[in-house]
Amino acid sequence: MTATIKLGELAEFLGATLRGSPEKEITGLATLQEAGPAQLSFLANPQYRKYLVDSRAAAVLLKAADAEGFTGDALVVGDPYLAYAKVSHLFDPKPKAAGGIHPSAMIADDAQVDPAASIGAFAVIESGARIAAGVTVGAHCFIGARCEIGADGWLAPRVTLYHDVRIGQRVVIQSGAVIGGEGFGFANAKGVWHKIAQVGGVLIGDDVEIGVNTAVDRGALADTVIGNGVKLDNQIQIAHNVQIGDHTAMAACVGISGSTRIGKHCMLAGGVGLVGHIDICDNVFITGMTMVTHSITEPGAYSSGTAMQPAAEWRKSAARLRQLDDMARRLKQLEKRVGEVTPGSNASSEG
Amino acid sequence: MTATIKLGELAEFLGATLRGSPEKEITGLATLQEAGPAQLSFLANPQYRKYLVDSRAAAVLLKAADAEGFTGDALVVGDPYLAYAKVSHLFDPKPKAAGGIHPSAMIADDAQVDPAASIGAFAVIESGARIAAGVTVGAHCFIGARCEIGADGWLAPRVTLYHDVRIGQRVVIQSGAVIGGEGFGFANAKGVWHKIAQVGGVLIGDDVEIGVNTAVDRGALADTVIGNGVKLDNQIQIAHNVQIGDHTAMAACVGISGSTRIGKHCMLAGGVGLVGHIDICDNVFITGMTMVTHSITEPGAYSSGTAMQPAAEWRKSAARLRQLDDMARRLKQLEKRVGEVTPGSNASSEG
Amino acid sequence: MTATIKLGELAEFLGATLRGSPEKEITGLATLQEAGPAQLSFLANPQYRKYLVDSRAAAVLLKAADAEGFTGDALVVGDPYLAYAKVSHLFDPKPKAAGGIHPSAMIADDAQVDPAASIGAFAVIESGARIAAGVTVGAHCFIGARCEIGADGWLAPRVTLYHDVRIGQRVVIQSGAVIGGEGFGFANAKGVWHKIAQVGGVLIGDDVEIGVNTAVDRGALADTVIGNGVKLDNQIQIAHNVQIGDHTAMAACVGISGSTRIGKHCMLAGGVGLVGHIDICDNVFITGMTMVTHSITEPGAYSSGTAMQPAAEWRKSAARLRQLDDMARRLKQLEKRVGEVTPGSNASSEG
Repeated sequence: MTATIKLGELAEFLGATLRGSPEKEITGLATLQEAGPAQLSFLANPQYRKYLVDSRAAAVLLKAADAEGFTGDALVVGDPYLAYAKVSHLFDPKPKAAGGIHPSAMIADDAQVDPAASIGAFAVIESGARIAAGVTVGAHCFIGARCEIGADGWLAPRVTLYHDVRIGQRVVIQSGAVIGGEGFGFANAKGVWHKIAQVGGVLIGDDVEIGVNTAVDRGALADTVIGNGVKLDNQIQIAHNVQIGDHTAMAACVGISGSTRIGKHCMLAGGVGLVGHIDICDNVFITGMTMVTHSITEPGAYSSGTAMQPAAEWRKSAARLRQLDDMARRLKQLEKRVGEVTPGSNASSEG
Repeated sequence: MTATIKLGELAEFLGATLRGSPEKEITGLATLQEAGPAQLSFLANPQYRKYLVDSRAAAVLLKAADAEGFTGDALVVGDPYLAYAKVSHLFDPKPKAAGGIHPSAMIADDAQVDPAASIGAFAVIESGARIAAGVTVGAHCFIGARCEIGADGWLAPRVTLYHDVRIGQRVVIQSGAVIGGEGFGFANAKGVWHKIAQVGGVLIGDDVEIGVNTAVDRGALADTVIGNGVKLDNQIQIAHNVQIGDHTAMAACVGISGSTRIGKHCMLAGGVGLVGHIDICDNVFITGMTMVTHSITEPGAYSSGTAMQPAAEWRKSAARLRQLDDMARRLKQLEKRVGEVTPGSNASSEG
Repeated sequence: MTATIKLGELAEFLGATLRGSPEKEITGLATLQEAGPAQLSFLANPQYRKYLVDSRAAAVLLKAADAEGFTGDALVVGDPYLAYAKVSHLFDPKPKAAGGIHPSAMIADDAQVDPAASIGAFAVIESGARIAAGVTVGAHCFIGARCEIGADGWLAPRVTLYHDVRIGQRVVIQSGAVIGGEGFGFANAKGVWHKIAQVGGVLIGDDVEIGVNTAVDRGALADTVIGNGVKLDNQIQIAHNVQIGDHTAMAACVGISGSTRIGKHCMLAGGVGLVGHIDICDNVFITGMTMVTHSITEPGAYSSGTAMQPAAEWRKSAARLRQLDDMARRLKQLEKRVGEVTPGSNASSEG
């Protein structure tokens, strides 16, 4: 469960400049404040520099500039946070799945499971599915007909893929996620909703991560498409025929409505909602809980909502907000009147 | 996996007027822009009429008015979108479940499963449950004690029904949905929460659809009630003792608090939240992410929230909003003062 | 399924003053309006007092003050709602799990399952896990390596615990909940996200309840921590390294971002969102759908958002809101101008 790695080995692994004994043994990772004498720490955010001098860490990942004046052991790297990301996997206590197919798993005769894949207890793999080498399918997973999972993917216990979901390489899917569910497609006739079969699939690129209990619906006609390197946090809803560009990341509880297209390298903070059938260009950042009701064509940061207040003050603001149209008209009229009684001034055209 | 159906057969199935060869073979569905020469398309939304002339579709579902001047093959119908909904199921690649009870399923001795039902791998069906003819219970489903599922229902893999959930006919439940969970009922005594057993059940009508990872809690005392034809999208939360009227539809990520009643033929867009113990009348439409804090007694459309802005502008708006009560008072005072210095005017009563 | 308990036994169980025959048989619970002649009801909220006189209930739990003038049978108690909470469990039709380990469950050789625990069908319990006496692990649950579940816990069917999740006594976890998922940790280098292993665990206190499809992520380095008596409703997202103080309750659809700390005895209404790395002090109440972007240091109630309006009015308000900064500047200018033409007044400093 606990790895022990020598500092010199870590320096070599990272291509870091070592300051200290290469024989020092590292057994884990911790923050500067919490690290013990056998733990490696890191300094990435300048606001934590104050904790560096008193840290008990065995060694610290830091930049050359921060290493000056620091007398402890260190691994000097160009990007300490990225270096921390890389070494974190060496100390991960996550159990490695046993190789092969668990005897309780139910695999269709014509499914293809690579001998170097791992299939967990009570997993179900349907007709025509293909599981590549190095893939882990956790216990209780359901892999629908004709699904494809590329090399080195990792599916936590209890992930559902409906039929015709195609997944690239090195994709991670957390527990409870459902890929390929039938999107919300109904035709209304005389007040009654008639279901539209969702005949498209889902296409997921390489190096994607999909969080706990996140839902990605299948396409109504063509596929729903998730680009390479996309990272989706927990409890996210991706509706049918959404397209997400490469390396875009979304925090938890985001909801994207049908057929909306999101560009590359976007970041959506938690709780953001997008209406359907809009386009978001590349390099857009949307702050938390923003409601996006139209396309965005310029990179940059966008927001909606109101700032939190004590509830009593908020009630006044909320009541006033409903009077805002009236206030605006009164202000304009007042400007006009004041302009009339103070000739030469031009109050109403200001601002 | 791929159906092939002759155009004449589709015309007969729909009661459509056929224009073109009844022998033409159709293998699938696509949009006007994407359809190939063996695919059927449809024109429902007028804004897509521009794509009609250049479509490569084998034939198009359209209205008589749109068929005029169109020289391609067509199926002329009264409601093309409804016609598309109907034919979509003919081309659905969704695998049909094998009939009967999978040998790995665990069925209580006194549960009643109709011979014409299908029970998937590793499903668990508890004591006293009744599964009607034509029902599909997917792999890994859990059907609690005394549950009833009416004819021709379809439960995706991994659906949980707690005990005493009664479901009508032709109900579709997507993967990860949980029906009958114990609602959030606690009595607070001296700062400590004491759990209240949730002794009611859930009653679900006919032709209901429940989306991926949606939760419908059981009643605290009486049942939680979902009417006929209700459509719930993914990631929705329905709290204990909510009542939802017939043919109401909710998009993803909606949350309804306890004991709230919603009328018939309502539509709630994504991310809407309703407080508890309120009544929403029939034919109400609530726009996305609206916060509903009181009952609605008039049909119509309702909204809350603020429009998205570039983040820098938004920060100014948000700061100003907190000053709004102050602004309103200053405006009123200014009106009074201007009224005093310009006698005969009546600024402060305007608007 | 239905319990029958004599009124005298209930009085003894609650330490209540009995008014009526101790031999009267009670078979269930209902509201004052719906109770039949064999059902117990309660009066806790004064607004329901009007239903007391006409109630057909066999007996009513009420306070001494409400018992005056009421001629029906009663159990007089100090806190009727708490008394209702206590007796509710006596009438709960929830099936009791069979004792022991279901033969289909898959238990690692070195996992420790107390003989007085119940393990459901198709459950998977991994290496080194420890399940205490009186614990129910539902069907399809996955209990990861080295997890600990304290005495008398109840896990609904289909709960996932990743590895290294430690849970106190009497903890209830509803179906679909996922504890210990890998939080959203990525280092961005040149536009590409690199995964950070989440090496911490989750620590959950005694008497906690976790709702349907709620996600609690494991810590990035140290543990995510949920205090004693915390109640989390459905569809909640708790990110890595969040800390929640004792007896805090959250309604459905709340999202808490990483490393945020919440005090004791707080209440978060439905749909609230908190950004990461902030502190919320004890005894804070946050109203529904509020966006919390900074720490709260004073107990009290807090809100954000706007009040619902008919959509046409809302569109005007939303448009005006974007002009608010302009309006504020124009108001200030007008005050200045009016102040100049009415010397002796002091309009611009008011408010």
